[in-house]
Amino acid sequence: MRAEPRLLVPDPLTTGGSVVPRDDQRAYLERVMRLRAGDAVRLFNGRDGEWRAVLQPSRTGLRLAVTECLRAQREEPGPCLAFAPIRRSRLEWLVEKAVELGVARLQPVETARSQAGLGPIRRLEAIVAEAAEQCGRLTVPPIAGPVRLARLAEAIAPPLVVLDPDADRPLATLLAGRTTPCLVIGPEGGLDADERASLAATPGVTLACLPGNVLRAETAALAALAVWGAVGRVG
Amino acid sequence: MRAEPRLLVPDPLTTGGSVVPRDDQRAYLERVMRLRAGDAVRLFNGRDGEWRAVLQPSRTGLRLAVTECLRAQREEPGPCLAFAPIRRSRLEWLVEKAVELGVARLQPVETARSQAGLGPIRRLEAIVAEAAEQCGRLTVPPIAGPVRLARLAEAIAPPLVVLDPDADRPLATLLAGRTTPCLVIGPEGGLDADERASLAATPGVTLACLPGNVLRAETAALAALAVWGAVGRVG
Repeated sequence: MRAEPRLLVPDPLTTGGSVVPRDDQRAYLERVMRLRAGDAVRLFNGRDGEWRAVLQPSRTGLRLAVTECLRAQREEPGPCLAFAPIRRSRLEWLVEKAVELGVARLQPVETARSQAGLGPIRRLEAIVAEAAEQCGRLTVPPIAGPVRLARLAEAIAPPLVVLDPDADRPLATLLAGRTTPCLVIGPEGGLDADERASLAATPGVTLACLPGNVLRAETAALAALAVWGAVGRVG
Repeated sequence: MRAEPRLLVPDPLTTGGSVVPRDDQRAYLERVMRLRAGDAVRLFNGRDGEWRAVLQPSRTGLRLAVTECLRAQREEPGPCLAFAPIRRSRLEWLVEKAVELGVARLQPVETARSQAGLGPIRRLEAIVAEAAEQCGRLTVPPIAGPVRLARLAEAIAPPLVVLDPDADRPLATLLAGRTTPCLVIGPEGGLDADERASLAATPGVTLACLPGNVLRAETAALAALAVWGAVGRVG
């Protein structure tokens, strides 16, 4: 048995409603998945839960007739991930994995050693949407506008936990049973000494390490989210 | 201050020894890192610890004169990761990240739903070497020859922990304070019902879940290794 395709759509979802898929979604359903009239898909929009819909031919091409609610909308509490942009291929991978691992919000941060800008935001948003479709989420984490590191503690509600290889406290110890923090990952090469000292002195900010090898920025982000999912997730 | 380049070499490393780098390593040192005679690099071979070496011109091109031992060799106990081959780009990510996250051995497994073969092993070995260089490891995890899933429990010393979305026990609970297991990850689409039942009935094999969303195979592998690093690592 093959899983029903799952699509993120912008439309409201209610019984008796219908949705016209985007051209690329239509091509995916008809040409890749080879669905026919009467076949079912699952739809979500980040607000109205998850719904079953049935393919119906229409004069304009294809519409999806919404039939029944499969899951009611619920909150999906997760960490915000604040990250310094890295090389594009690694950034795209980071974004995909962060969505799978339950990130609630993606917050780009400008740091002294940032190597790169964020690049085209629409491509990243498409990766977020595809990962949300694939991993069964009901919510779609937004990509916030970039903020400078010095302003991060103002832009994000505390607590913030900064991943730092030189910190003494292991992340797992810090997360167990606590309020979900915003996880902050520096650029390749790490935060510089001034940034580190300034963050360490900011109320609501804690430095924590991931024991083991030197991790690339995107690996540290993924590992931190995985550790949150295993020991810090509430409910 | 820039970190000294770190190279994996096949040669024995001892005081007074010398190493002739491969052509690609030489090009990296001279053209990318722009090192000159007298500049230092770090060398390791997986057996003799980590050494400093100094660039010296030689009649044949370049040699690296080994000067002092920086770290003695030590064991780096970590999990074996048994994984079903997946699409190549995702497999390469999986291998890189597994090395960073401390995997001790990479064990390809053939399953009923495996979509792909392993592909060229030399490219994967190069990825292992590069990740080991980058993340500061002293050991280089081998990539074992593929085994069929039914033979895995014979090929690998128990305990084995199979990641399965339908399992009841969370991986973090299972790992805390225990012997490091071999972590087993199924293909995209998961193990089939027969495989799952057969594994569940094998002595020394436990099924465990990662709470949260539906994870792609490579995400599950990396999350499992990250959780091991945070709660299952001993010493």
